[in-house]
Amino acid sequence: MSKFENVTAVKEANIYHNGNVTSRTLEFSDGTTKSLGIMLPGEYTFGTNEAEIMEMLSGELDIKLPGEDWKTLNTPETFNVPANSSFDLKIKTVTDYCCSYIK
Amino acid sequence: MSKFENVTAVKEANIYHNGNVTSRTLEFSDGTTKSLGIMLPGEYTFGTNEAEIMEMLSGELDIKLPGEDWKTLNTPETFNVPANSSFDLKIKTVTDYCCSYIK
Repeated sequence: MSKFENVTAVKEANIYHNGNVTSRTLEFSDGTTKSLGIMLPGEYTFGTNEAEIMEMLSGELDIKLPGEDWKTLNTPETFNVPANSSFDLKIKTVTDYCCSYIK
Repeated sequence: MSKFENVTAVKEANIYHNGNVTSRTLEFSDGTTKSLGIMLPGEYTFGTNEAEIMEMLSGELDIKLPGEDWKTLNTPETFNVPANSSFDLKIKTVTDYCCSYIK
């Protein structure tokens, strides 16, 4: 069980897609931010502002990143998403993730 | 937007009911623990070990606490659950909550 110490946790959840995708925001002392989230099975398109590193903590999904073909990823794979882009996901099993935002 | 500062956040989610109920654990410097969670619409029964104070951050639900009748609660209501007990919930709309465990 991994832990993040000395962080600030935002109390309220981020809720998307009728609650099928939710996350909690963590703020770190170096000014960076991560979100810890859950995606339930379904198909979603997400847009990014900052670049993201998405670490899968549980689950299996298909992903289509900008300019790439669909591919299947299983935990514990990690994928990178460029800033100001969008990507498509087909979540096959409940996916727990840690998203790091890159400034 | 409320925040909890100087906490330790467990990276991995707690996942119940096929992901329809999930939470994240926060550990505080005084040794206490809270979980921040999401409950999607559905009917659930939960058991407690420690007593809990459940603060609703969003959503509407019906609840049956031990020895009580069903009642409807709306955000921002709070309810208390005794230690070593169980309670029933009918979640009507996506419910974001903060659960404090009382030792």
